[in-house]
Amino acid sequence: MQSVREDTLDAIPVTPSAGTLVPLPLSAVAIAGGFWGERQRLNRESIIPHAVSWVNRLEWVGNLEKAATGEKYEHRGREFADSEVYKLIEAMSWEHARSGASELDEVLDAFIGKLAEAQDPDGYLHTLFGRPWQQPRYSDFKWGHELYCFGHLIQSAVANFRSTGSTKLLDVATKLADHVCTMFGPGGLDKVCGHAEIEVALVELFRATGRRRYLDQAKVFVERRGTGTLPLFEFGQAYWQDDIPVRAATVLRGHAVRALYLAAGAVDVAVETGDSELLDALKLQWDNTLARRTYITGGMGSHHMDEAFGDDFVLPPDRSYCETCAGVASIMFSWRLLLATGEAKYADLIERTLYNIVATSPSADGKSFFYANTLHQRTTAGEAPLNADGVCIRGGSTGRQAWFEVSCCPPNVARTLASFGGYVATADDEGVQIHQYASSRIRSKVAAGHVDLDIDTEYPSSGRIVVTVVAAPSSSINLSFRVPGWAAGATLDTGSGPKPVGTGNVHVNQTFQPGHQLILELPMQPRFSLPDDRIDAVRGCVAVERGPEVFALESVDLPAGWQLENVQVDMSAGLGDADGSVAVTVRGLNRTGGHSGWPFEVQTPRKSMDTIVVPLVPYHSWAERGSSTMRIWIPVASTL
Amino acid sequence: MQSVREDTLDAIPVTPSAGTLVPLPLSAVAIAGGFWGERQRLNRESIIPHAVSWVNRLEWVGNLEKAATGEKYEHRGREFADSEVYKLIEAMSWEHARSGASELDEVLDAFIGKLAEAQDPDGYLHTLFGRPWQQPRYSDFKWGHELYCFGHLIQSAVANFRSTGSTKLLDVATKLADHVCTMFGPGGLDKVCGHAEIEVALVELFRATGRRRYLDQAKVFVERRGTGTLPLFEFGQAYWQDDIPVRAATVLRGHAVRALYLAAGAVDVAVETGDSELLDALKLQWDNTLARRTYITGGMGSHHMDEAFGDDFVLPPDRSYCETCAGVASIMFSWRLLLATGEAKYADLIERTLYNIVATSPSADGKSFFYANTLHQRTTAGEAPLNADGVCIRGGSTGRQAWFEVSCCPPNVARTLASFGGYVATADDEGVQIHQYASSRIRSKVAAGHVDLDIDTEYPSSGRIVVTVVAAPSSSINLSFRVPGWAAGATLDTGSGPKPVGTGNVHVNQTFQPGHQLILELPMQPRFSLPDDRIDAVRGCVAVERGPEVFALESVDLPAGWQLENVQVDMSAGLGDADGSVAVTVRGLNRTGGHSGWPFEVQTPRKSMDTIVVPLVPYHSWAERGSSTMRIWIPVASTL
Repeated sequence: MQSVREDTLDAIPVTPSAGTLVPLPLSAVAIAGGFWGERQRLNRESIIPHAVSWVNRLEWVGNLEKAATGEKYEHRGREFADSEVYKLIEAMSWEHARSGASELDEVLDAFIGKLAEAQDPDGYLHTLFGRPWQQPRYSDFKWGHELYCFGHLIQSAVANFRSTGSTKLLDVATKLADHVCTMFGPGGLDKVCGHAEIEVALVELFRATGRRRYLDQAKVFVERRGTGTLPLFEFGQAYWQDDIPVRAATVLRGHAVRALYLAAGAVDVAVETGDSELLDALKLQWDNTLARRTYITGGMGSHHMDEAFGDDFVLPPDRSYCETCAGVASIMFSWRLLLATGEAKYADLIERTLYNIVATSPSADGKSFFYANTLHQRTTAGEAPLNADGVCIRGGSTGRQAWFEVSCCPPNVARTLASFGGYVATADDEGVQIHQYASSRIRSKVAAGHVDLDIDTEYPSSGRIVVTVVAAPSSSINLSFRVPGWAAGATLDTGSGPKPVGTGNVHVNQTFQPGHQLILELPMQPRFSLPDDRIDAVRGCVAVERGPEVFALESVDLPAGWQLENVQVDMSAGLGDADGSVAVTVRGLNRTGGHSGWPFEVQTPRKSMDTIVVPLVPYHSWAERGSSTMRIWIPVASTL
Repeated sequence: MQSVREDTLDAIPVTPSAGTLVPLPLSAVAIAGGFWGERQRLNRESIIPHAVSWVNRLEWVGNLEKAATGEKYEHRGREFADSEVYKLIEAMSWEHARSGASELDEVLDAFIGKLAEAQDPDGYLHTLFGRPWQQPRYSDFKWGHELYCFGHLIQSAVANFRSTGSTKLLDVATKLADHVCTMFGPGGLDKVCGHAEIEVALVELFRATGRRRYLDQAKVFVERRGTGTLPLFEFGQAYWQDDIPVRAATVLRGHAVRALYLAAGAVDVAVETGDSELLDALKLQWDNTLARRTYITGGMGSHHMDEAFGDDFVLPPDRSYCETCAGVASIMFSWRLLLATGEAKYADLIERTLYNIVATSPSADGKSFFYANTLHQRTTAGEAPLNADGVCIRGGSTGRQAWFEVSCCPPNVARTLASFGGYVATADDEGVQIHQYASSRIRSKVAAGHVDLDIDTEYPSSGRIVVTVVAAPSSSINLSFRVPGWAAGATLDTGSGPKPVGTGNVHVNQTFQPGHQLILELPMQPRFSLPDDRIDAVRGCVAVERGPEVFALESVDLPAGWQLENVQVDMSAGLGDADGSVAVTVRGLNRTGGHSGWPFEVQTPRKSMDTIVVPLVPYHSWAERGSSTMRIWIPVASTL
């Protein structure tokens, strides 16, 4: 079991008071370049400033400024526009904790100042509701997103308090949370928000302040969900998880981001109240969702229409939704279960989602973003529809765009990248657990003293991870390393040569001298991955992965005259090209044969074109070389 | 070329003044029982009365009554509620023409009376717009559906005029159409309706009245579409076909019903104005849509989100939309091209759509309807969401429902079934062309005199079609019969024994004595159909068809303990069971093996369960035996 933390001001995103693992503050994990270090730099220098410029330009910050004046104003943006400002406050706060003072602090302070001024005397704070010329407060639980916005405000306040020690925003948040408890607590409104989010925020506010009423209110919201307090809706009550009580559900369903934020908050409630029945239900939901409703990228959400999970095994690559925010929310859910249980499978999914959803969304310059993350892009045609402000009016199927009318994804990426270090390792009295691999310096404290580790790796380009013990107590400690589920054949060298290790958490329990090196080797040969045959949409296809990265075939890598829809993989030729790059051998089919006209009748033999070797690209870096079509799942030659 | 019709009061749905084939009035084709005769009876006795009761109960008729009073009222239903009343007027009018006076005539007259009273002095008629307390006329071209409703009114008026000879409703329609020409003609509003429909209606009104301005206005609307007069929209301008001019498009795209109604109207404009470039464009669009965007059922529309066509080869069976109304609209489009060209492929698609979409929508008791027609039902779980009126609030994925908030499908089925006879045959100076097979008496006139034919068949249960010439002129005439594209191996016996005939239209040019019999034998062995391999969603699967009917495997036909998701077809065992029914041999896979947990990794060999023979049901009769799962496309054993 974990030790109680002394310093609640450490910048830790999630601080359970019970569970198996104890998280480290962002300041304790310094990422030194590499895959994630580069993205954290991009986040600070480009993604965050880019997002800040848009919330300013579109006057979403202006809404808060105008609300503070008390004068009549026209609200800009959607009903959740406030929340994008809050997520950016959270991102900038974690960024401050991670890398210290920067030019972002000025923006951060200005944003917080506006918030404090915009709050109503009774604590309510939303720029679209409640003023004499506006729709009344709490008149639209379906779409109003009031409690949703409050949730993001509270999360940002906790982040800011833990990162800076300032209580300015925390005071706004507690006043708001007190208002929520009064309005929705015992004897109050028997309602939940159409979009879960307040739950996970209230528990963290409880953790940050120690005020039990916030936990109690979070529990009320979690228990109330699924009792049918939201009105009838054409996508069904599952859309906002109001169909089945959380503790009775067996799988995630409905709107993916809603489902995952709710699940994250429900884990928090279960952990803080010692509700093992609820925790077990959430673990079962995670297992079933992973086995039947998750894409190979870690993406979640199969439907465009309702941005929702599909039925079991409905995982179409070409109409995958896989909203970036669902990836962020999935990491939130998995991280809480990892802290609660210590099981490596949760860190496996976090890694998959980080590399293939979070890293996929932003462009290399950090100035455009995938909202949805398709696994199969069939056409290059069509411009994204932009409004008069130059903002994309559609989330799905648009390519990366600078900003969206519904622009949750860019700030969500920003707060996740800023807090990436928090997912790398945990530490308890006995030792340190490494969950994600990145070149980094980890500083931690165990019962016997300080443990500092240097991690040196080019992962995921290389599978070699060198851990140098920089400082350790003289007594024995327990270091553990996650060997990913895909890494069969991994070896660990603790000083006496490489020894095979199984997948899951591998423990090394001994005393360490400063300078002691451990070398973990994860096998990084590219591999073919075949789908469960119940996933109809990719039957007869294969994907290629290497380490934690899913690869994709882009049309720009095909010879002139070849089309992605006419290519099949020759699996027998293996993977890789003469340079050692990830590549597949494919044959092209001449389309002069095949079906003509009616596509379900009369097939004539087709002439096969040449067989060639084509390079694949990591999925996260697709669509960076101009207009292209792309597929992750490639048909296998010789199937029907 | 066709002869000019003398009698414009004949009840013919579509009367082109040029083209290849000349349609027959409904009264000239008497369906005598069988597949379609039974459904026409069901339509008269159940479907139409059922729909009438709903438009009364929900006060959609009441909207028209209240509008007539001039007093303030609360509009009931959606913005297109008027149009359901109009489609029912059309259905009852064709029903009157088909089978004479009935108890429906009273309802019909009452509905028409209300319409006449509700019309504004300037001709405008819509119950949701334009009154002092309502949204202004023509203030919402995206969603207002004003011209859409006008179109259905005009179609119903033409149907009523041609079926009864009464001009009461035609007068309302011409007054309304004159208003439209004034408002949207030269110098008027440069707009089109978000939902095409007025185009096809105005051309038919021109044909019924001879007033050229209606044709001119239809042409204006067709040419204006695709020039970007509709506002920016998140689903893209293709949703309402405002992305590309009709004559420049190469494939149907966007909302399927919108696209198909527009295409039907555009064919009418092309035919009446002799615009061969436009006609060629529409033929190309039909060809490409058939080859790349049409389901094996004839269903069109791959997306739930926007009820739209997908990209080429995006034809997922489990998220197929295939709206019933798109099937109706597809028949309208194909019928017009058939009349224009005489090519059998258009009648082939009409047949496929009639048997597998139009016949699938209504339940056996005619009191519930599929709105969307999925090809793969994965779960039996979940009740359809009904509002306080007992009306289903969602179109897709609900099973058959009594009525919908958007309830275009039931009245569209009703008008199609009532006018089914119109699709059976055509006649010109030289002879008679049979396009669809049903037991019937066909009376027609050719240059040399009357031709009466008795068709006797149990099609599609049997492929034997016996045509008896009841009356014929003494000179030679040309009888033609469509041999469907799937009917390789058909024979025709014109009196001297069966002779092989190819697919397409088969002509018999000779003199006939009364009593002369011709026997067409279409091969009705069930057959496996394999998809074009670019249709990713059904790779490695096979469908079973027999004649024009697509078959389906329903879970209620599997032994206890078997699940549809674990079944694979053994194609080598052929089709059929000991009784000669349509059946497949399948093996069941035990799910204890396979992937466990993460579904893209580590497969262990699975034990195959028994191999059994299971019956299939015609797709149009699925979901009639309680809750079940269903699939048309079944995985083939031995593929990945």
